[in-house]
Amino acid sequence: MTFNIHSTDDNSKARTGVITTDHGEIKTPIFMPVGTIATVKSVHQRELLNDIKADIILGNTYHLYLRPETDILQKAGGLHQFMNWSKNILTDSGGYQVYSLSERRKISEDGVKFKSHIDGSMHWFSPENVMDTQRLIGADIMMAFDECTPYPCDYNYAKRSMHMTHRWLERCITRFNATDDLYGHQQHLFPIVQGSTYKDLRKESAQYIADKDLPGNAIGGLSVGEPNDEMYEMTDVVTDVLPKDKPRYLMGVGTPIDLLENIALGIDMFDCVMPTRNARNGMIFTSQGSINIKNLKWKTDFSPLDSDGTTWVDHDYSRAYVRHLFTVNELLAKQICSIHNLGFYLKLVRQAAQHIQDGDFMSWKTMMVNQMQNRL
Amino acid sequence: MTFNIHSTDDNSKARTGVITTDHGEIKTPIFMPVGTIATVKSVHQRELLNDIKADIILGNTYHLYLRPETDILQKAGGLHQFMNWSKNILTDSGGYQVYSLSERRKISEDGVKFKSHIDGSMHWFSPENVMDTQRLIGADIMMAFDECTPYPCDYNYAKRSMHMTHRWLERCITRFNATDDLYGHQQHLFPIVQGSTYKDLRKESAQYIADKDLPGNAIGGLSVGEPNDEMYEMTDVVTDVLPKDKPRYLMGVGTPIDLLENIALGIDMFDCVMPTRNARNGMIFTSQGSINIKNLKWKTDFSPLDSDGTTWVDHDYSRAYVRHLFTVNELLAKQICSIHNLGFYLKLVRQAAQHIQDGDFMSWKTMMVNQMQNRL
Repeated sequence: MTFNIHSTDDNSKARTGVITTDHGEIKTPIFMPVGTIATVKSVHQRELLNDIKADIILGNTYHLYLRPETDILQKAGGLHQFMNWSKNILTDSGGYQVYSLSERRKISEDGVKFKSHIDGSMHWFSPENVMDTQRLIGADIMMAFDECTPYPCDYNYAKRSMHMTHRWLERCITRFNATDDLYGHQQHLFPIVQGSTYKDLRKESAQYIADKDLPGNAIGGLSVGEPNDEMYEMTDVVTDVLPKDKPRYLMGVGTPIDLLENIALGIDMFDCVMPTRNARNGMIFTSQGSINIKNLKWKTDFSPLDSDGTTWVDHDYSRAYVRHLFTVNELLAKQICSIHNLGFYLKLVRQAAQHIQDGDFMSWKTMMVNQMQNRL
Repeated sequence: MTFNIHSTDDNSKARTGVITTDHGEIKTPIFMPVGTIATVKSVHQRELLNDIKADIILGNTYHLYLRPETDILQKAGGLHQFMNWSKNILTDSGGYQVYSLSERRKISEDGVKFKSHIDGSMHWFSPENVMDTQRLIGADIMMAFDECTPYPCDYNYAKRSMHMTHRWLERCITRFNATDDLYGHQQHLFPIVQGSTYKDLRKESAQYIADKDLPGNAIGGLSVGEPNDEMYEMTDVVTDVLPKDKPRYLMGVGTPIDLLENIALGIDMFDCVMPTRNARNGMIFTSQGSINIKNLKWKTDFSPLDSDGTTWVDHDYSRAYVRHLFTVNELLAKQICSIHNLGFYLKLVRQAAQHIQDGDFMSWKTMMVNQMQNRL
């Protein structure tokens, strides 16, 4: 993997660049659509490629491990082959999903024992077997196994947890180095900064992580309920420590505004279920603000879904038509809005890159943040 | 509307032709995907046009009347504009849906009083207002308002009902002729042959309908539970009476085998929810037989969904992958199989046309019917 920085912003920590892997180029800043369980919900792979223009998607190790199960993916020749996706895939480590199981899991130094949300069967994740699973999935970018602490989190718990995440990282690296790429393309490991909302812990974790000299670095444990300002503060602290010449990935973030604010703080990579989940509920994002397309006000609005939109659905379908589809509970409603929202997110990061290159990123960001706060 | 017959089969009543309307050519025999409520379920209009290559789709007057309601369609400039579909649309008259409401409707000479399946509100359909509604929808082909009798049906009831359908047809024609096309394209009215499963009634009805000299003729009241042989027998009787130089439409039919059998009996047009409904349940049609893609046997079958398939989904996705999507209840499963099944139906009628032209339709049909009976 290489990461070449193409331009940096004079007025913020924002930068543009290109990550190159065996599955092609990823222009940063990038948003990664979430393909939880070998599908970005209601979107065809062809649409991700040609319409949304995603360079990379994310898969969830926890979900893929449970279904279709790793042996199926191995027999298929990895997740790329299984789902017919020829560009990059990043897999999380399952740490976040296991954290979400709350009462259904028990964390110890060795790893995590948890109950499947599907059938209650018992399973075991450790730093070692999570590396093995991601090897078998065939992700281009694998994530270290971490504990994602809740918000709010007691200082001492956050500190102990962070240190355990660091020890788990050592075990991940050892296992990663002891195992091979399986499908003819190189795999890469990213470590994860933890430390809850404590600056000193975040700095310590970022320094620890940075010292491992892995090809990219991630920030976890944010977007778990803390106020936005606290998220931005933690990002700011961490990106001051993480090396400039490696991509920085802020996990599970966020709203369109969160993306722009964190790009200004030096983040290069994002993922979030928000564009697809909200789409399925009729909430669409536009450069002028967000829209609840189910609202009565769109009943006879025959204008395009988003006249500034970048995907064909924005012009093929009217607001009144998409509202009708939600009213009658038709699947096409979810399909249209998912393509729209992902198209909007990917366009937003491409626009950010352009403005960083043009040198007016911060003034553009201020204008966009202001506009995107509207509810139309 | 024009209908030009291009070729006829020496060994059956099969023929190929082209219907031309203001929304373009419809090559016959044709299958019309059902777009109940301004959407062919889970399929984009672009996919209908480019991948499935549908020349015409069907809309349901009953459903469109209730939602989005006719005034919305009128404000949109008709259903074509509302759903962004530039090719042909045929609407049924609501007769079949009203018949399906059974306990929720009361039929009289004047028309039908019925309760909405959505909110129980009372509504009224008459030959006159159903013409008005289809005018407002803007269908290229409008259907006369009829009573669809159940199977089995008492002879005297079938006879009385048929005569009422005939009287209703007179009222439809009067109203149709007294009203104008609304959106700049010409609309056309097809009458419907009834008569249940009684040959004498079917002959009488076909003669009555034929005498109206409308641009096409339909056969209703079949595919309502009668054995296949009885359906074919009725079709055979009716197509002997209906004029050769007008398109013949067999309403609500059917399986791929039904299509081929009825093409042999001189039918030119079909519609059915089967390809899309079955798709959503994981049942796909292929030239080698039908497949329940949810079955365990496909778990590690990484071959294409349908190697003989005509749409891109057939080659982009494997059987194991589509099975996985059904197992985890992902929307993409329904989307893939809907495109596949509609693509298969449209390919089947195009193949039938080719074999009619080539003069080997009946031997090809025998081979295909034999193959398609398989369950893979």
